[in-house]
Amino acid sequence: MKNKQVLLASRPQGTVEESHFRIVESDIPKAGDNEFVVRNHYLSLDPYMRGRMDNEKSYAAKAEVGAVMVGTAVGEVIESKHEKFNPGDFVETRTGWQEYGVSNGGGVRKLDPNYVPLSAYLGVVGMPGVTAWIGLNEHGKPKAGETVVVSAASGAVGSAVGQLAKLKGCRAVGIAGGKAKCDYVVNELGFDACIDYKAVDLNAALAAACPKGVDVYFDNVGGPTLDALLLHMNNFSRIALCGQIAGYNDPGALALHNARSFLVNRIALRGFICSDHLDLWRPALKELGDLVHEGRLKYRESIAMGLDNAPKAFIGLLAGKNFGKQLVKLI
Amino acid sequence: MKNKQVLLASRPQGTVEESHFRIVESDIPKAGDNEFVVRNHYLSLDPYMRGRMDNEKSYAAKAEVGAVMVGTAVGEVIESKHEKFNPGDFVETRTGWQEYGVSNGGGVRKLDPNYVPLSAYLGVVGMPGVTAWIGLNEHGKPKAGETVVVSAASGAVGSAVGQLAKLKGCRAVGIAGGKAKCDYVVNELGFDACIDYKAVDLNAALAAACPKGVDVYFDNVGGPTLDALLLHMNNFSRIALCGQIAGYNDPGALALHNARSFLVNRIALRGFICSDHLDLWRPALKELGDLVHEGRLKYRESIAMGLDNAPKAFIGLLAGKNFGKQLVKLI
Repeated sequence: MKNKQVLLASRPQGTVEESHFRIVESDIPKAGDNEFVVRNHYLSLDPYMRGRMDNEKSYAAKAEVGAVMVGTAVGEVIESKHEKFNPGDFVETRTGWQEYGVSNGGGVRKLDPNYVPLSAYLGVVGMPGVTAWIGLNEHGKPKAGETVVVSAASGAVGSAVGQLAKLKGCRAVGIAGGKAKCDYVVNELGFDACIDYKAVDLNAALAAACPKGVDVYFDNVGGPTLDALLLHMNNFSRIALCGQIAGYNDPGALALHNARSFLVNRIALRGFICSDHLDLWRPALKELGDLVHEGRLKYRESIAMGLDNAPKAFIGLLAGKNFGKQLVKLI
Repeated sequence: MKNKQVLLASRPQGTVEESHFRIVESDIPKAGDNEFVVRNHYLSLDPYMRGRMDNEKSYAAKAEVGAVMVGTAVGEVIESKHEKFNPGDFVETRTGWQEYGVSNGGGVRKLDPNYVPLSAYLGVVGMPGVTAWIGLNEHGKPKAGETVVVSAASGAVGSAVGQLAKLKGCRAVGIAGGKAKCDYVVNELGFDACIDYKAVDLNAALAAACPKGVDVYFDNVGGPTLDALLLHMNNFSRIALCGQIAGYNDPGALALHNARSFLVNRIALRGFICSDHLDLWRPALKELGDLVHEGRLKYRESIAMGLDNAPKAFIGLLAGKNFGKQLVKLI
């Protein structure tokens, strides 16, 4: 038995390709004092990982060339010399893109796979769900009757944003790519409308879907989508900016031409990432877990099988080919 | 005796010219029931007036073609049928660009020209001062030791922003056009540094003047200046956006190419105008008046003589030819 790992082979200039990764095998690690070994069941793939492949300053430490790609996984403890973790415990760790990892327990969350499915702790009851919760509640502050728009609406973050907005009595409008995603967002998740940005003129579609303008825009993509939204924001509206996937391959694509709107409409825009608000994780995860357990918060997963397929699945995620939370199933 | 008035003759497409105004004479008005007549001593000229000349949606009602240009003035009541105002009272009214006006008392502020000079109520102890106070305190929220940058630093708003920041123990850095303005900002107002954007590379100058980055940017101009600042903002920094003079003649000039910084640095940007916060005017004016009275808050005025010169002075203001608060002296 070996431990398969995905290393960062080189930093991409622009589009990510499989050649930027290298798959290797090493021995399964042993636990040292105050450590445990986890066998990962699911690896999470997230857009933020693209930023970590670059050498530029971003909001998180970069991945190192030649090292295991950074990332979060859920799995089962199989060996432990740590007093707080025992074999059989289910945990979320930041052991990265590999089948087995060692942890000293720092930043590790214990999971109950009987309350919600294990994989959900990487999605709607994990970082993406908390991101949705914080951006909507802390920055968006929607009131009942207001209109909330979210981009990447069928994704792990966006699907939670719209459903949480609906639970608050808001009009929820999604933006997604393709009819299948838009149908899912409206018919399965219960959004009031979803705009297929690949098929229509975004500006005209926003006017039609948001007859009373936009009070909260939760932005996962930046660039031309954010720029279009600026023309539809109401006075004293809020923009929670947590993703700029439009600029991953070309920062110039993030340019905003409608900046006049910031002043005319007295807009409050705020960039944030979920780790800026560690104090809110506990209440957010409690609410999200309860809502999933009760069947009031739905989610969807795209599951790639086996670590060998992680690079390809990640490249697909950046191109919007996933449908819901992108995971890699390892066992 | 006649009442001289400046009317909006036509809406400018781009640059404002004197031909967009028309000067007329009419009879001095009479007070009706619950009204008074004011003889204006000073008319205030402010950048926001440019926006009111357009037909587009902005943050304030537009001026009408053929009507007296909108604006605020200070003067003395000369006739009254209003129980709260008597001849000899000094007042601030929104009677516009004319020598005499009629008011029903709505939105009128009584002034004490013995506490601070009458003209100061149109500047640092008036709307521009309140704008500085609100943007800095409500949105900027500077802490001692932080770096505060303000554009149009020698102007009515900017000069107050930097001085208030200094009183809070911050490093204050101005941006202004020309050596005379920059010298004034540093030597007279006590800013730590001032960048002459006409003479240097703004990006390099910001790096030199803000060795610890920028925590608060108070933006009066928008466009390329704001875009340059985005490259120098610290994590969790704040941008208070209250002017976009860079885009008055060409909204395309407001484009932002460095929008990536909003997320990377978790920036909070907020567009605001002082009338968004009417609850804060009383405490702001109290503090500003006391500081001026005590000689701890300085200001400078550019005074055009006579209403005939108002259009020319306004055009100069938009071109940055004023030096401090731009006024027109009418008496």
